[in-house]
Amino acid sequence: MSYQNAARWLRRTAPLFALLLCVRALAAESAPLDRAASVSSPGAVLKVEVSVIAGRPSYRVWRFGEPVIAQSRLGFVLKDEGKFDRNFELTGSATASSDSTWEQPWGERRFVRNHYNELKLRLTEVSGAQRALDLTFRVYDDGLGFRYEFPDQAALRDVVIDDELTEFTIAPPATAWWIPAGHPQADNDLEILVHRTPLTEVSTTHTPLTLRTDRGLHIALHEAALIDYAGMRLARIDGQQLRAALAPAAEGWKVRRSAPFATPWRTLVIADSAGALYMSDLTLNLNEPNALGDVSWVKPGKFIGIWWDMHLNRWTWEAGAKHGATTEHARRYIDFAAANGFRGVLVEGWNRGWEGEWYGRGDKFSFTEAYPDFDLPGLAAYARFRGVHLIGHHETGGNIGHYEAQLAAALDLDASLGIDSVKTGYVADANQIRRLDERGVERREWHDSQVMVRHYLRVVTEGAKRHIAIDTHEPIKDTGLRRTYPNWLTREGARGMEYNAWGQPVNPPEHEANLVFTRMLAGPFDFTPGIFALDPTRPGSRVKTTLAKQLALYVVLYSPLQMAADRIENYEARPEPFRFIRDVPTDWSETLVLNGEVGNYATLVRKDRRSDDWYLGSITDDEGRLLTVSLGFLDPARRYRATIYRDAANAHWRDAPEEITIEEREVGNADMLTLRLAAGGGEAIRFAALPGNRRVSVKH
Amino acid sequence: MSYQNAARWLRRTAPLFALLLCVRALAAESAPLDRAASVSSPGAVLKVEVSVIAGRPSYRVWRFGEPVIAQSRLGFVLKDEGKFDRNFELTGSATASSDSTWEQPWGERRFVRNHYNELKLRLTEVSGAQRALDLTFRVYDDGLGFRYEFPDQAALRDVVIDDELTEFTIAPPATAWWIPAGHPQADNDLEILVHRTPLTEVSTTHTPLTLRTDRGLHIALHEAALIDYAGMRLARIDGQQLRAALAPAAEGWKVRRSAPFATPWRTLVIADSAGALYMSDLTLNLNEPNALGDVSWVKPGKFIGIWWDMHLNRWTWEAGAKHGATTEHARRYIDFAAANGFRGVLVEGWNRGWEGEWYGRGDKFSFTEAYPDFDLPGLAAYARFRGVHLIGHHETGGNIGHYEAQLAAALDLDASLGIDSVKTGYVADANQIRRLDERGVERREWHDSQVMVRHYLRVVTEGAKRHIAIDTHEPIKDTGLRRTYPNWLTREGARGMEYNAWGQPVNPPEHEANLVFTRMLAGPFDFTPGIFALDPTRPGSRVKTTLAKQLALYVVLYSPLQMAADRIENYEARPEPFRFIRDVPTDWSETLVLNGEVGNYATLVRKDRRSDDWYLGSITDDEGRLLTVSLGFLDPARRYRATIYRDAANAHWRDAPEEITIEEREVGNADMLTLRLAAGGGEAIRFAALPGNRRVSVKH
Repeated sequence: MSYQNAARWLRRTAPLFALLLCVRALAAESAPLDRAASVSSPGAVLKVEVSVIAGRPSYRVWRFGEPVIAQSRLGFVLKDEGKFDRNFELTGSATASSDSTWEQPWGERRFVRNHYNELKLRLTEVSGAQRALDLTFRVYDDGLGFRYEFPDQAALRDVVIDDELTEFTIAPPATAWWIPAGHPQADNDLEILVHRTPLTEVSTTHTPLTLRTDRGLHIALHEAALIDYAGMRLARIDGQQLRAALAPAAEGWKVRRSAPFATPWRTLVIADSAGALYMSDLTLNLNEPNALGDVSWVKPGKFIGIWWDMHLNRWTWEAGAKHGATTEHARRYIDFAAANGFRGVLVEGWNRGWEGEWYGRGDKFSFTEAYPDFDLPGLAAYARFRGVHLIGHHETGGNIGHYEAQLAAALDLDASLGIDSVKTGYVADANQIRRLDERGVERREWHDSQVMVRHYLRVVTEGAKRHIAIDTHEPIKDTGLRRTYPNWLTREGARGMEYNAWGQPVNPPEHEANLVFTRMLAGPFDFTPGIFALDPTRPGSRVKTTLAKQLALYVVLYSPLQMAADRIENYEARPEPFRFIRDVPTDWSETLVLNGEVGNYATLVRKDRRSDDWYLGSITDDEGRLLTVSLGFLDPARRYRATIYRDAANAHWRDAPEEITIEEREVGNADMLTLRLAAGGGEAIRFAALPGNRRVSVKH
Repeated sequence: MSYQNAARWLRRTAPLFALLLCVRALAAESAPLDRAASVSSPGAVLKVEVSVIAGRPSYRVWRFGEPVIAQSRLGFVLKDEGKFDRNFELTGSATASSDSTWEQPWGERRFVRNHYNELKLRLTEVSGAQRALDLTFRVYDDGLGFRYEFPDQAALRDVVIDDELTEFTIAPPATAWWIPAGHPQADNDLEILVHRTPLTEVSTTHTPLTLRTDRGLHIALHEAALIDYAGMRLARIDGQQLRAALAPAAEGWKVRRSAPFATPWRTLVIADSAGALYMSDLTLNLNEPNALGDVSWVKPGKFIGIWWDMHLNRWTWEAGAKHGATTEHARRYIDFAAANGFRGVLVEGWNRGWEGEWYGRGDKFSFTEAYPDFDLPGLAAYARFRGVHLIGHHETGGNIGHYEAQLAAALDLDASLGIDSVKTGYVADANQIRRLDERGVERREWHDSQVMVRHYLRVVTEGAKRHIAIDTHEPIKDTGLRRTYPNWLTREGARGMEYNAWGQPVNPPEHEANLVFTRMLAGPFDFTPGIFALDPTRPGSRVKTTLAKQLALYVVLYSPLQMAADRIENYEARPEPFRFIRDVPTDWSETLVLNGEVGNYATLVRKDRRSDDWYLGSITDDEGRLLTVSLGFLDPARRYRATIYRDAANAHWRDAPEEITIEEREVGNADMLTLRLAAGGGEAIRFAALPGNRRVSVKH
């Protein structure tokens, strides 16, 4: 029986397998039913063993023969049915291998290799209802994912999960970079500064959770393909032992589903450097292929917007004397976008309903009616005429019932106006998202509950029907669903630039160096970089970076929709550094991390998908850096004109953030460059491939 | 007045300078004499400020505007004269810049750039004898060195230093990799395993002392050009405050000199990565240029020897039934060396005097008389006939008076036999080196006292007169004197391979990954790699590495005299991996660190000085590694045949150390390679440049 047949059969048939490929009796033969099955990664780097001991399933992970995950439990607590983690026997096992390469419609790299070994197991209760539970492990050289599958069976059809018991017991002592979960204060509790502590001091954390051991092993725990299930947080229950803590629905249960269904993949990326963590494609690989067919209508690109002025309190979202979203302002932004090659113009505060307390309430928003001083159809037409696209904006205040009632009409309107991307927002305290239950009772949800997981994806699929891409703010975390739904272009999901306008505190200089190796492991982030007015003596915002670092963020913090967030005036005042923002693309054929340490610094290079140009971005925390990099990534047969945007000799985030030096050099792939980053600084480089069909003559 | 003139004048004339280039009054004007002078590195990365506050000199160091060295005292305690660290005024200051490149006769790279800014200061006592003390700081982008100069002056001619008060107060919290100093147990207290602790737990340490801060800053404290002065250890006096602790002479004083003289340079290499620490040439640059003239007679090369068998207790040093150094054995080693391209054959135990307790005693050794079963002249002639060179061996047992009495005759004999390199040894407890003082009284010295600093260099200069290179075991630490005395080819100075034969404990898997970024910062190390018999089930040695790691050490642990330390039989049994040892050179035109973390792993590539071939060595600690490296260092116009020696899929230092896979591939500089290192493993690659005057046609 081929593996594919076995797998189909596994989904369709009775619990006992003909195939028992790698099940073995455990060494200690005390309990006759104890069994274990194992699988290694294609390069024999990782090995996973799943065992059932005294009826309880657990797993362990080794890397190069050394333990990474010590014995960790698997299972559930089901509502009304009790614990579903014991009394099991391992009744079936199958292995398979897969090695394929797929192409991304847009992304950090064009081609993605998906190379893993798989172990599928069936667990069956030895008594009582004899219910079955399946487990699938996919093991890569750079990590693994596993998920539970609830098979179609009479004894367990409607499943209400009270708790998922999946554990992750980290074997070697580790430092953790983490974001506390379950704090109701923030807009969305992903918007909390990254904590760095020993793993033994973590309470409950969101994922990705990034760990580094004393021996330099880097581990990221996360999940992939979060669909119709509650988001997984991780609670530390003892020592370095973490357990899944699913976000609860308002009613207290975590997940309601009907079998057959599968949970999201629980994922571990395991690598030797921060850069190798970032380079992993495991999360994308564990998502299903593109479900939308032709997605050529999904357009990455840069945008500007009527946005930062509101955060600076110069303009307002609501109508009035300081209203930002006026026809006049928007025309000016459209003109500037057209003149400078921006595809999009975002206008926030264009629609009725911003008056008063909309935060966490959102019941007055209209998603189809513009304020009177904002000529939506006229501006949409003017934008089209200038070759620019308005970006829609749907701030819900977290009231999803109110939003869903208007969703179809709102997206229809957008589509009719040529608006092909919409930024959504869910500003509400973290457990105060409003919905109506089946009986019309208002309930309050976390952003990452199953209800909200469904809602976010519903907006995306409704958008897809109308060829509209979605940029979700105050979102559910990214679990790689962009592979399946490529119109889910980007999202927020961490502390963005706006905290520098009004945050208490503002983002510290290490913030972005934390993000690269924590939040960015999940996927694109609409961070909204590009603030040029950094002078700390001016009132208003306090952005703790240099100007060169703002440019570098366009390469370092990937987003296929990438904003130039500052006011037009500030770009007009500094045309030379602004040239980098004009030049930098948002869609890449290759990405490499040249160096980096979690929370300290990172240097990435990416190749433009539409040309042979490369771009480099390097950022640091409070420490200045001298980083020597090889340009070996460049095509050896070409020469490049490097335009280098670097911190001036006296630059420092604290007292000289706007000091920048711009220079040009011709370089080739045998060159080394030393990047000189000021404290809180960065460096951005465009490597423009020089023209010519060249003939190289080499003598030796 | 030019700087050069000013400097000459400073050395020759009265203490008051006409030049006061950058002296400024300190902000707090409380004491009218308070003054400070500062200098920055050429790229404005580092800034040093020296200040005299209330008569006391101190210095501080910033990097990119952030403090690295907080206020740290300068000065001395002089015997009979008391403290020489107060009552000072800053009476002169001059700055200069220098940027030059010099060529090494042999080394890790051929050309070395020496680019620094210099600040010279004169301190003068404001009352009493008004003695002067000069200070010179040289500041590079990757670190700094400073030294004291005792000028020629009537009031202070004969100087006896009881203590040097130089402090190093590390500003950011740091982890330290260090070797405790002053322990009398070991052969030489440099031969202690590297400790890793918070800096606040260091007691007294040897240098190089390697530090890493939480923000990823790497700092190495050491000294350069240690000549006629006591070796500097560092004692932690409080928090992260370290103070020079000079090795005492037997009589208790630290240094006796007559002015004018200069101390060694106190050095700090400061960089953003472990690799950048290693890449610094600061120590060499702070040494004086080659003082020996034509040194074409100094020959790097590989050697084998009658050595490991003695450590394994199969053979003995002393004559008898198991005597290792027999004519028959030596002929066999000469034959094997000739057949396999080794330049040298070391024979230990060739000379009379090994009987009984020679350790720390050494009074019976003859350095000219061979044991009767060792035909020295005949073997020297046979070696010459086979194109091989005997390597002399002078084990002193730490009795330097006994050795010095025979030194000239011994070196004359060696020279007459065509022996052009000599390995010396000083096996004695760490404070039990024997010498006779002026009155004929036997005194006991540390290996790093001023007396021994003089002795070690005397052997080197006596060797140089006879065109003999020296490989010092149980040595004084390396401070870059190979620049001035290029016949000081290599030395021991840390725990080498022999500890794996009888050490309690043997070297752990992390040992070499510690060495790269601690001991190796000082200079070449005759570690004696290349043990092939690693099977832990065999009795005898226990080498906690894989075979591939043994090969990688030839690239990673630089020594221009590099041993293949195992028994001939073990090489004959594994000709395929032995081929790497045959191929690998010992002299390089370029060296690059591709990646690495202190104590965890390191990947280095070096270019053969005599060909276009490159060699890669990568090693790891207890953790296996997947390390992706760019081959951008290769010449873009050439192709290379890579012969890859890597850990087999099942290799592990613990239970499968000899499992190795060897494969060949053609590669170019646009390729990426993923190195797969087993736990305790490594990888070695030869990139042989393919022949051909190639014409590359590239279309775009």
